[in-house]
Amino acid sequence: MAEQDTPAALPGPAQPVGAGSPRVFVAGATGFAGALAAHLLWRHPRFELTAVTGRSEVGRTLADLYPRYRVPLAIEELDLDRHAAGLDAAVVAYPHAAAAPTVGALRERGARVVDLSADFRLTALETYERWYGEHPRPDLLGDAVYGLTELHRARIAGAAIVANPGCYPTAAVLGLAPLARAGLIADVVIDAKQGISGAGRTFDETTHLSMAGENILPYKVAAHRHTPEIEEQLDALDPAHPGLAIQFQAHLVPLDQGELASCYVTPTTPVAPDELRELYRDAYAAEPFIEVVERPPGTRDVCETNFCRIFPATDAHTGKLLVFSAIDNLWKGTSSQAVQNLNLMFGLPETEGLL
Amino acid sequence: MAEQDTPAALPGPAQPVGAGSPRVFVAGATGFAGALAAHLLWRHPRFELTAVTGRSEVGRTLADLYPRYRVPLAIEELDLDRHAAGLDAAVVAYPHAAAAPTVGALRERGARVVDLSADFRLTALETYERWYGEHPRPDLLGDAVYGLTELHRARIAGAAIVANPGCYPTAAVLGLAPLARAGLIADVVIDAKQGISGAGRTFDETTHLSMAGENILPYKVAAHRHTPEIEEQLDALDPAHPGLAIQFQAHLVPLDQGELASCYVTPTTPVAPDELRELYRDAYAAEPFIEVVERPPGTRDVCETNFCRIFPATDAHTGKLLVFSAIDNLWKGTSSQAVQNLNLMFGLPETEGLL
Amino acid sequence: MAEQDTPAALPGPAQPVGAGSPRVFVAGATGFAGALAAHLLWRHPRFELTAVTGRSEVGRTLADLYPRYRVPLAIEELDLDRHAAGLDAAVVAYPHAAAAPTVGALRERGARVVDLSADFRLTALETYERWYGEHPRPDLLGDAVYGLTELHRARIAGAAIVANPGCYPTAAVLGLAPLARAGLIADVVIDAKQGISGAGRTFDETTHLSMAGENILPYKVAAHRHTPEIEEQLDALDPAHPGLAIQFQAHLVPLDQGELASCYVTPTTPVAPDELRELYRDAYAAEPFIEVVERPPGTRDVCETNFCRIFPATDAHTGKLLVFSAIDNLWKGTSSQAVQNLNLMFGLPETEGLL
Amino acid sequence: MAEQDTPAALPGPAQPVGAGSPRVFVAGATGFAGALAAHLLWRHPRFELTAVTGRSEVGRTLADLYPRYRVPLAIEELDLDRHAAGLDAAVVAYPHAAAAPTVGALRERGARVVDLSADFRLTALETYERWYGEHPRPDLLGDAVYGLTELHRARIAGAAIVANPGCYPTAAVLGLAPLARAGLIADVVIDAKQGISGAGRTFDETTHLSMAGENILPYKVAAHRHTPEIEEQLDALDPAHPGLAIQFQAHLVPLDQGELASCYVTPTTPVAPDELRELYRDAYAAEPFIEVVERPPGTRDVCETNFCRIFPATDAHTGKLLVFSAIDNLWKGTSSQAVQNLNLMFGLPETEGLL
Repeated sequence: MAEQDTPAALPGPAQPVGAGSPRVFVAGATGFAGALAAHLLWRHPRFELTAVTGRSEVGRTLADLYPRYRVPLAIEELDLDRHAAGLDAAVVAYPHAAAAPTVGALRERGARVVDLSADFRLTALETYERWYGEHPRPDLLGDAVYGLTELHRARIAGAAIVANPGCYPTAAVLGLAPLARAGLIADVVIDAKQGISGAGRTFDETTHLSMAGENILPYKVAAHRHTPEIEEQLDALDPAHPGLAIQFQAHLVPLDQGELASCYVTPTTPVAPDELRELYRDAYAAEPFIEVVERPPGTRDVCETNFCRIFPATDAHTGKLLVFSAIDNLWKGTSSQAVQNLNLMFGLPETEGLL
Repeated sequence: MAEQDTPAALPGPAQPVGAGSPRVFVAGATGFAGALAAHLLWRHPRFELTAVTGRSEVGRTLADLYPRYRVPLAIEELDLDRHAAGLDAAVVAYPHAAAAPTVGALRERGARVVDLSADFRLTALETYERWYGEHPRPDLLGDAVYGLTELHRARIAGAAIVANPGCYPTAAVLGLAPLARAGLIADVVIDAKQGISGAGRTFDETTHLSMAGENILPYKVAAHRHTPEIEEQLDALDPAHPGLAIQFQAHLVPLDQGELASCYVTPTTPVAPDELRELYRDAYAAEPFIEVVERPPGTRDVCETNFCRIFPATDAHTGKLLVFSAIDNLWKGTSSQAVQNLNLMFGLPETEGLL
Repeated sequence: MAEQDTPAALPGPAQPVGAGSPRVFVAGATGFAGALAAHLLWRHPRFELTAVTGRSEVGRTLADLYPRYRVPLAIEELDLDRHAAGLDAAVVAYPHAAAAPTVGALRERGARVVDLSADFRLTALETYERWYGEHPRPDLLGDAVYGLTELHRARIAGAAIVANPGCYPTAAVLGLAPLARAGLIADVVIDAKQGISGAGRTFDETTHLSMAGENILPYKVAAHRHTPEIEEQLDALDPAHPGLAIQFQAHLVPLDQGELASCYVTPTTPVAPDELRELYRDAYAAEPFIEVVERPPGTRDVCETNFCRIFPATDAHTGKLLVFSAIDNLWKGTSSQAVQNLNLMFGLPETEGLL
Repeated sequence: MAEQDTPAALPGPAQPVGAGSPRVFVAGATGFAGALAAHLLWRHPRFELTAVTGRSEVGRTLADLYPRYRVPLAIEELDLDRHAAGLDAAVVAYPHAAAAPTVGALRERGARVVDLSADFRLTALETYERWYGEHPRPDLLGDAVYGLTELHRARIAGAAIVANPGCYPTAAVLGLAPLARAGLIADVVIDAKQGISGAGRTFDETTHLSMAGENILPYKVAAHRHTPEIEEQLDALDPAHPGLAIQFQAHLVPLDQGELASCYVTPTTPVAPDELRELYRDAYAAEPFIEVVERPPGTRDVCETNFCRIFPATDAHTGKLLVFSAIDNLWKGTSSQAVQNLNLMFGLPETEGLL
């Protein structure tokens, strides 16, 4: 698959970019998340994508590596001084622990950063170190804002570093936030299912179609790194009930992009169906990307969009509250949420380039 | 798709059937469950498959309707007197409520019956009627044994009517039985995922590849008919904690055959990892079709087999117990379990024709 | 699946529509093709989508039927006078033979029409009648232009009726046009493969995931209605070799949207690799939606786009020419090509709303 | 995914093996082909599987690596003297060029060999060397018989080395043999489609579900190694028309196991539909694993079986003959055909262990 592909005429940006547009580049554009971020920024009417870098595939165009994204820029080796010159912002799509040093270097050169790794998602340093090991740049933790747009809009707008949420926390926290804010969560089980793109550009038994196909596979049982991220966010919304220990479990299912969080909540107090519906309608009435619906959402409903589709329900039999939250793990769960945050950071309409 | 297909030479039974073999027929062989039962009986070394009947496709061979099952018998209209003559047993694969009258008529003509419907699964008539409406033959309820082989082996061997379990209860109850028997379940959430074959030969939005593909879809939220079936079985195993209300939720995921029940149990008392493992090893040590494993099971591991693969785990963070139970919904969840039961009913080795 | 779905706030058009925008409606929006056309027009910056009609699902919103398309208009019964009032154009997505009367009625009320059926694709009436039976409106055949944009751009711009091509002819004719124009096709085999969406919103054995999944199925062997459509187009490009009889064969493969035509051409005269490449580069150098590439195209490369990706190759062993042409059958093969044609018909940039 | 998996009780052979059963081992059992061969031999009633070897995963059980195959033997490093001691036969599942030396060493220790590689498939050494480079053991070429069971049954029964065919040649040659034998092929295009298992246990862009899924991809355009293998076989069947140059093209489609060869034949003389059908019926009337059918075969029809399903048709429009030939690429295309050959080599019924 190494042959070079040279279409007759590589297209210019999908949309003419206005003068004075914010200049953005993507570091780590060879992975699924970085490549999609580059695609969304390339076709965005208001950002100028200045470069894409990668630690492999240097010299190949991104369009050659990901034909359907059609970004004709060549993949370059990262050169901090050159790539940060005149830059307004960067999207960093590096693995955990590898991201922080680059984020720091970009900050020192004046760029604002949306970081797709976990490095700045947790405010408590000790929690980070329990799950990921030593933090390369703990000094920057205070500069970072957690990038779940709907929860931290105002702070994101002014942030130097936006820690883009994990895809599982995005679905789970958006699904549970109205309950947490109302102090209604006594106990919760989150059973999450995700397509294979969640494993990224990883080539192994979990991604081979002849192994992942026709399979349903739980993974990281009783030990998922996203647990503390979800707990920190829910705790912050419900200071009256600190220390909620959530049960989070991830599963791989045989599709490409899509993620569903099924949340089973034991409420602190009984909630009537109408109350529950109203709680969610009110919470998200003004949100352009949250759809509160009246029937179970399928992940197809949000595929390749920045939407999160939420269905809250009550179970009269058990008294539990059920919330189903569907997103595209690569879009709202990762890269389109990064663009949503960039829109906010540069004073653009939040939906720009995302509808 | 209606052309008749006539392979050069239709094969005889895959295995030579011994003289004096029990004679079995399948009523309702045009659906997924009945067709697979016919296939398993046709290639079984010890049963004689005498006929297959259906309410549609009469005259076509089953091999024409389901080529990969290669059962060359023609589909006939049901003629109770003719089909029951000299019969030892029947598999009835009819929809709920439609099954009971035929089961009754077959009983009256002397045949033993494995019924794949829900009609005889619940011992409490009022529970049946709450979920399914009036019961056509309540008089027969006392003759029926619940056909979860591993739990009711002795009674199945002598039963007149075996009520073959639903696929969800099969996975869930096998996964939870050791905990129930030990009185350890204080509360449980069962999040089940199933392939599209679970919808059967139904042609609609839930089965169309362009709608079901690339989708994860919860369905029957807070109202699944399998809930009382699971509760009855767990209650019977744990008389000390009657009235457990389980939270059961089903999801469709885009594969053909496969089902995973992820069970999240709040224990009545803390359980150590070693204790839990030992509990499961002991419970299933002698079972030919239960595999207690040490890592998360994928549904591929049991695809097109009668195995149930179970992984119990403890979560130190929440104190909950996690049990993952994987089966093939059409095999162990339905048709191969029916054959496992027939083996028992006719004194054959339980694994005959199933390995 | 019949519950009504009412998101909190149905969005307005994805893009603000300018004053004086052409007004378009879609007749037959409940099928895959019509629904996608409605989606593309709804989010289009320059068209106003005035209504969507259907013969079923009346009263439901299109967003409820196809959540991911997010078109909040309610499906109406067709009322020719009302729907044609003030209308500039219509997209008609009806089955063959059912379309022509409505196309005619709309023409008589002054609307220009893009017809997605086969009713106006063939210029020879006797060919139509051989494959489809009596033509309901043969009087209109002369008003129709074949809507393969890249071949008939000028005539489409002024057409009263545009007969949007079938998806197979789109891929095949775009793949073969440079060879036909150069008089190079002595004989050709076209082996086409398509995802299940090609069967449309049809619920049967060909679309059920448990039957279509894990399957590769040839269909309409030696009798595909698209054969004469391809032959007419190739004949018109190569008047020196009239009467070419093509071998066309379709196959269903288990994916949703995607189509590949693999064309095996016996050339009238040998062609060198460089010559062949140059022929294709030259033919499509100015085309915004045709990508001539140097390695085999996958259908993923064009999924959910209006692009057609073509790879021509020579086989030194046989002397044959090979052309692989990939499209999304629902987009370039149907609905986005309809929008590409509408752009032309109303003097808009051809790529408007499609990048 | 490296955790060791220890089910409660590993099963013995699925079937009791008779005394004096031929002893067979599988070299290279960690790949898809070797693992399936081991599975089929383990559950076979008449062979004793003595060992499985691999160049990786040594010490792990094969059941741990491929749970669904349930072969409890530990993977060993190959020790020729030890593994060949008392051995009757070996299945060698190594890559091309790597296989021949091991095949030779096993021969020298007295074992008969079924080789799954290409090393002994071509009788002409120069053809082998053109496609694969230098042959490691050309001295053994004369001892090898091409293992397409239906064509070379008598010679396979007595062979020292059986060169098991490639999966594409299996489907293509079985599909075309009746025509070749009748001298009817003037020209032929073979368009083959295969599931992802054809790529084997290879972890790259061609097998990642998020890249291979929803894709149709032609590969090895105009340069497929299976071309000479097919040509040699067809030439041998039709000595009157030597030197036929076939056009063969492979495609990957998103399923696991399944392969369809669509063959488009220009006949040397016109053939009537009845004649064609009779030709195929006659050719395969006595074959237990060939099904000549009257409608297009889907690969599902033969999935996980040793059957080859063939549909021949005539096209009145072009005069061409069409033949569709469906197999499971891993079963009849590879490992179950190896067992079919072993059955022959040891005087067992050809269908033993395969129905």
